[in-house]
Amino acid sequence: MTYCVAITVNRGLVFASDSRTNAGVDQISTFSKMHTMVSDGERMITLLSAGNLATTQAVVRQTRRDLESNAPRNLRTVQHLAEAAEYIGELSVLQRQKHRNAAETKFDPEASFIVGGQIAGREPQVFLVYPEGNHIRAAVETPYLQIGEVKYGKPILDRIIHADLPLEDVARCALVSMDSTVRSNVTVGPPIELMIYAADSLREGPRLLLAEDDDYLFALRKGWQLGLQKAFENLPKLPSAATPNVVRLADR
Amino acid sequence: MTYCVAITVNRGLVFASDSRTNAGVDQISTFSKMHTMVSDGERMITLLSAGNLATTQAVVRQTRRDLESNAPRNLRTVQHLAEAAEYIGELSVLQRQKHRNAAETKFDPEASFIVGGQIAGREPQVFLVYPEGNHIRAAVETPYLQIGEVKYGKPILDRIIHADLPLEDVARCALVSMDSTVRSNVTVGPPIELMIYAADSLREGPRLLLAEDDDYLFALRKGWQLGLQKAFENLPKLPSAATPNVVRLADR
Repeated sequence: MTYCVAITVNRGLVFASDSRTNAGVDQISTFSKMHTMVSDGERMITLLSAGNLATTQAVVRQTRRDLESNAPRNLRTVQHLAEAAEYIGELSVLQRQKHRNAAETKFDPEASFIVGGQIAGREPQVFLVYPEGNHIRAAVETPYLQIGEVKYGKPILDRIIHADLPLEDVARCALVSMDSTVRSNVTVGPPIELMIYAADSLREGPRLLLAEDDDYLFALRKGWQLGLQKAFENLPKLPSAATPNVVRLADR
Repeated sequence: MTYCVAITVNRGLVFASDSRTNAGVDQISTFSKMHTMVSDGERMITLLSAGNLATTQAVVRQTRRDLESNAPRNLRTVQHLAEAAEYIGELSVLQRQKHRNAAETKFDPEASFIVGGQIAGREPQVFLVYPEGNHIRAAVETPYLQIGEVKYGKPILDRIIHADLPLEDVARCALVSMDSTVRSNVTVGPPIELMIYAADSLREGPRLLLAEDDDYLFALRKGWQLGLQKAFENLPKLPSAATPNVVRLADR
């Protein structure tokens, strides 16, 4: 499994990904799922990947090859980030079809991607590319997109992220979201990669790689656990805890 | 959808359930999913239900009928709570098979249950009954069981619940877990039912019904939101936030 999230706020973008891959519980490996494809002062485009590892690697490889060979359509020639998402979607569907074998087995090597970044003269944007190749865009009302094991880490994003949040806070929130997921699903695991992109910089921003035993990750975990416990202790007591009214739904 | 959770600690049990049911987004209703079947000073047995509403209602009805008619096997004659779980599982599979029509459609009216309570002379226990009729038991290492939309509300349970926690705290934690789920999945919704069972009382304990606009629920939500924000603000700052080391996975 995988957990990747990209968050868009006024000051820029934050990307976070775990790096555990598994093909069965006894075949666990570590692979980066964060791929900055272009970062040249004119545009910055980063991919996050989830799903079948052979498919995601093939898509990333093809994308790099198209860049190197100056193919007519590559991540440096696309005019919009939506076009980049379209292109990644097509490569993904192509790879998927190549290896799908519906007749013999149910095997379907599907993959999803997050495509985020900025092209000079345009806004920073984040897209989610579905296994079917179509895509959606993050918006003010939905300032983040996730792929993989998305549920455990969602509540904290919903409560903290807003458009004016400083990038450093967004990054910490992404790490808390990641940590909640790692805690609840053993197939999501460190090292955790984090990249902070400042709007209009048009270059890859600072990138952190946090290993399992990283001091900062440990301090963050401990701080969050203590903070949650405190938040919990300060919650209002149950109404008339000794003898609350016993009430029932009519149709019980 | 549904979210139900039952938690077992040294001092007793806490049951919580939402009461929203939906058959498509335009067919939303309110039904209790918490059913205390026996509460007579010799035993207390409560069911929580998730899944197909026709199946869960049929199972609850049959269980009540078996109690009323003093059927040879009913929730007052079972010797262990595991036997109660077995019995509920059998009723559930029976109902499911009756309406399943694999040949024509993919419709499969499956349901899951939580069976919790205590029989005189034995420990309080909580079981989860799968749609297939088999069951598992909560244990010290896993002091809670959930059915329905289980993921959003899990992280807080993992961080707060332990065997020595007072029942009132367990109840508040169940409400926070419920609230995180309600917030993230629109098909889980109030009123929220909560029941606190004190070990060895052998009778249904205080029960709360919290409507959408309930003052306490509102205060709890607000308190939790503020507490989380505070916990977040107190987290350690990112290491050398201005220029963190740019490090990469070897196989990127």
